[in-house]
Amino acid sequence: TIEHLFKEIFKAAKELIEEDQLNALLVSRQKKPNDTIVHIGDIEIGNGHQEHIFGPCSVESYEQVNEVAKSIKAQGLSLLRGGAFKPRTSPYDFQGLGIEGLKILKQVGDEHGLKVVSEIVNPNDIETAHEYVDVIQIGARNMHNFELLKEAGRASKPIFLKRGLAATINEFINAAEYIISQGNGQIVLCERGIRTYETATRNTLDITSVPILKKETHLPVFVDVTHSTGRRDLLLPAAKAALAIGADGIMAEVHPDPATALSDSQQQMDIPTFESFINELR
Amino acid sequence: TIEHLFKEIFKAAKELIEEDQLNALLVSRQKKPNDTIVHIGDIEIGNGHQEHIFGPCSVESYEQVNEVAKSIKAQGLSLLRGGAFKPRTSPYDFQGLGIEGLKILKQVGDEHGLKVVSEIVNPNDIETAHEYVDVIQIGARNMHNFELLKEAGRASKPIFLKRGLAATINEFINAAEYIISQGNGQIVLCERGIRTYETATRNTLDITSVPILKKETHLPVFVDVTHSTGRRDLLLPAAKAALAIGADGIMAEVHPDPATALSDSQQQMDIPTFESFINELR
Amino acid sequence: TIEHLFKEIFKAAKELIEEDQLNALLVSRQKKPNDTIVHIGDIEIGNGHQEHIFGPCSVESYEQVNEVAKSIKAQGLSLLRGGAFKPRTSPYDFQGLGIEGLKILKQVGDEHGLKVVSEIVNPNDIETAHEYVDVIQIGARNMHNFELLKEAGRASKPIFLKRGLAATINEFINAAEYIISQGNGQIVLCERGIRTYETATRNTLDITSVPILKKETHLPVFVDVTHSTGRRDLLLPAAKAALAIGADGIMAEVHPDPATALSDSQQQMDIPTFESFINELR
Amino acid sequence: TIEHLFKEIFKAAKELIEEDQLNALLVSRQKKPNDTIVHIGDIEIGNGHQEHIFGPCSVESYEQVNEVAKSIKAQGLSLLRGGAFKPRTSPYDFQGLGIEGLKILKQVGDEHGLKVVSEIVNPNDIETAHEYVDVIQIGARNMHNFELLKEAGRASKPIFLKRGLAATINEFINAAEYIISQGNGQIVLCERGIRTYETATRNTLDITSVPILKKETHLPVFVDVTHSTGRRDLLLPAAKAALAIGADGIMAEVHPDPATALSDSQQQMDIPTFESFINELR
Repeated sequence: TIEHLFKEIFKAAKELIEEDQLNALLVSRQKKPNDTIVHIGDIEIGNGHQEHIFGPCSVESYEQVNEVAKSIKAQGLSLLRGGAFKPRTSPYDFQGLGIEGLKILKQVGDEHGLKVVSEIVNPNDIETAHEYVDVIQIGARNMHNFELLKEAGRASKPIFLKRGLAATINEFINAAEYIISQGNGQIVLCERGIRTYETATRNTLDITSVPILKKETHLPVFVDVTHSTGRRDLLLPAAKAALAIGADGIMAEVHPDPATALSDSQQQMDIPTFESFINELR
Repeated sequence: TIEHLFKEIFKAAKELIEEDQLNALLVSRQKKPNDTIVHIGDIEIGNGHQEHIFGPCSVESYEQVNEVAKSIKAQGLSLLRGGAFKPRTSPYDFQGLGIEGLKILKQVGDEHGLKVVSEIVNPNDIETAHEYVDVIQIGARNMHNFELLKEAGRASKPIFLKRGLAATINEFINAAEYIISQGNGQIVLCERGIRTYETATRNTLDITSVPILKKETHLPVFVDVTHSTGRRDLLLPAAKAALAIGADGIMAEVHPDPATALSDSQQQMDIPTFESFINELR
Repeated sequence: TIEHLFKEIFKAAKELIEEDQLNALLVSRQKKPNDTIVHIGDIEIGNGHQEHIFGPCSVESYEQVNEVAKSIKAQGLSLLRGGAFKPRTSPYDFQGLGIEGLKILKQVGDEHGLKVVSEIVNPNDIETAHEYVDVIQIGARNMHNFELLKEAGRASKPIFLKRGLAATINEFINAAEYIISQGNGQIVLCERGIRTYETATRNTLDITSVPILKKETHLPVFVDVTHSTGRRDLLLPAAKAALAIGADGIMAEVHPDPATALSDSQQQMDIPTFESFINELR
Repeated sequence: TIEHLFKEIFKAAKELIEEDQLNALLVSRQKKPNDTIVHIGDIEIGNGHQEHIFGPCSVESYEQVNEVAKSIKAQGLSLLRGGAFKPRTSPYDFQGLGIEGLKILKQVGDEHGLKVVSEIVNPNDIETAHEYVDVIQIGARNMHNFELLKEAGRASKPIFLKRGLAATINEFINAAEYIISQGNGQIVLCERGIRTYETATRNTLDITSVPILKKETHLPVFVDVTHSTGRRDLLLPAAKAALAIGADGIMAEVHPDPATALSDSQQQMDIPTFESFINELR
């Protein structure tokens, strides 16, 4: 019928426009064909060499972070992570040390010459974060917190943006666009698993999102093997797959004594495990 | 067999403990057996009578909101919704009129004697919102925005909390706990569909979440039939199912001219459709 | 670009064809606007009156089935279900009594004047089934077993077809088409919940599939409240929602002593619960 | 706290028991610690060397299969696939050439000295299949077709078992147990993507299922990169990831002229693409 034909033409036009819109995004590779390199001091992410980010889920104490940092340094690595503001399902779970945590992280980073990455959850804390962290992380639960994304877009620090718990790749790309649209194009995307029916792993690592994100955008792409799998025994295989498929780096959690960790105790590596993990990856 | 017996004992014990934790929550019905009634002026939600919330997806103009408000009033209803801060996938989509939108909403509400509901997305705007809205909505994309939840918990207005895009019921209950733990127990929960593989509907309406939420918590539960289905032809059947299963009310979007709406044009009802919708529900 | 335009035109054409194909299906309401009534002896399904199907998950013994049948009869109902061939996840779980089970079911049905429904899992058993059952059920795990569907299409008994564990509505409709395309149009569709990330229920009851299926096809639509929820406490609310949204009937499991049931012990109703369930539904 | 301790004990105990059950399976690595090697003539799968399976989605003609076979042979590979019985969503889609297709496949295999793999969908055809194929494939839609699995368990040919569309890893392992429990332990497992909300790919490749399956069972594990991604541009990256994470081989579809293919035209490789794919993998 004619009506039907019109409907179809409109639909086609709508899709055409959507694709055009995607290509028109500032993060789109159509818009900027060459890879974006993210600069963290003199460290480069996305230049073809792989860089990795390790550290405890939560900053718990100077000693704890220091022990991990020593090991990271000893492995010749440069980036340290640690959570100070922890978004937790229950309000009664450990919520992180806050600014105190950031201070510890910075002190340890400075002492070992490591650059530090930490998650910020409140738009009001982005400015303060500049004093303490080298990279501002936006976590999975906040990928759709557009106020936070916009504030991150006004920051002068690189942003490490994790994919939402059940975000589509298209939504993920648009979240990055919220940041770049405010002026900050120093963004690392991080696949961290998506929510599915499968319970053998904490989330389902959507490994092919890596080549898709690298094709659609010019941004570096990391894989968080800790949260995507939630299983220590899968960290190394997942990391190998991630690097084989083209990820620019791996994020994983390391804790001196995972059993006593205040969060994510089931999935963090202890230091000897971390060291053999790194050796196996090389 | 012995093995089986052990298994059952362990299962029971595990569930017992999980239940204990859930029962210890302030929102839990174990903690407070009788229904919470949410007061919006002299309107009561959760008292056994059904109350519904209608209005446009976005506040676009005084005339637009006014036209919908007239119809709501004519139907003998009391609650008007309208979005002023719109969380949109793309930063280039219409983001709402902001404070201007809240002002229009308040003006129209005052003129017609309707109480108004609007979404707040930034913790910093919760305070300002008190001047303009009667109910503060936390949208699906912000259900895991714990900073916003905590701020809502310090508000003196009722909170209308939507389930996250892919949140479990347990996470949804804990999000409400973030609010009540800060002192504000005037919370309405709203099921709005979850993300699944099915594409015939925008989301999959998880209808049995309604009796589960009413069993586990003492809070009133609404169903947003617009976002759960994303289809005008399903609004009425979904609403009938929601009321039959025990929902305290329905939320749905109404726009004087959906085809020209700045957001959600495919799923809003026009005014005659709205009127017949209401008649059918009675 | 021209290339792009062509691509879009092709896409539109493809969708046009798909929609045409859907409308061209024999099960489509476009093809046959009036409701199909399924005849089971002198019982009619889909004629505007609601009929329900109850009975144990598995046929275990004459006594067990008989006890349930008595109660069904006492409630003035006409349809009895019971599984003889049980598709179980593990090969070491109870697999059903097979033909013996069908014989018990038939005997009990005959004695009480009830029509019986049972699942067939092997194309080779369809013919034999004609001797024992009044309705042949195709279970969720076999919705994509096209050889079985085709054989069911050559049967002279009505088919009760359940939606697959993670089937789309479109796939479900096409599964029915496999049956009708072989000549058998006496088909009842049954929504039984879909697999999602949510674990509070065994599956997620996709309640809006009911009006969609009734709009797209001319077949009667049931809701299996047992398998969709997996929780005794949700059977009644789910049934109320299903009937409110337009289902032609409910399927639910009833067992004289659920705790000792050889399958699905957590979710079957005992007889007093069943009786109050029926009373509440009326 | 005491409560916490109890919780951990219960958790541990529960997992222990579940693990015991899993470990008691014949496919379990606990039961048989060393890797199963599947023998297809003198080809070995699972011996540490990678073997791959290529060929058209459907057998369409002698010429078509022959052209692909020549290329496979020229690449020094040994295994050819081709579908003769095609499980298709719609009954009006091309259903395969049936026995004629198997004959073509066998003839081409014989001429080029390739072993052939083809899907069987009806328990009644398993016996006949022995004359024509070297490996019997059970497809994703039939992973829960237990009658077919049992019949495959009585076959004297190796079985190539694909994971169901939305099967859990536990269900997948139990499906293999259905086969081995009937006597046939020559089974290759194949991850082929799972159904999720993400639409950028046809399915979501659950890459970490590979190390989990290799840890839990002693069977070889393949990855079907064609159906998991549904995108030609992702075949090579997905294959690299699969091999890096420990897969024993890759399955992918190759067609002399994908655009005219009777099924899966969007995702098959043409022959030059296939040749460069193989070169890149080495």
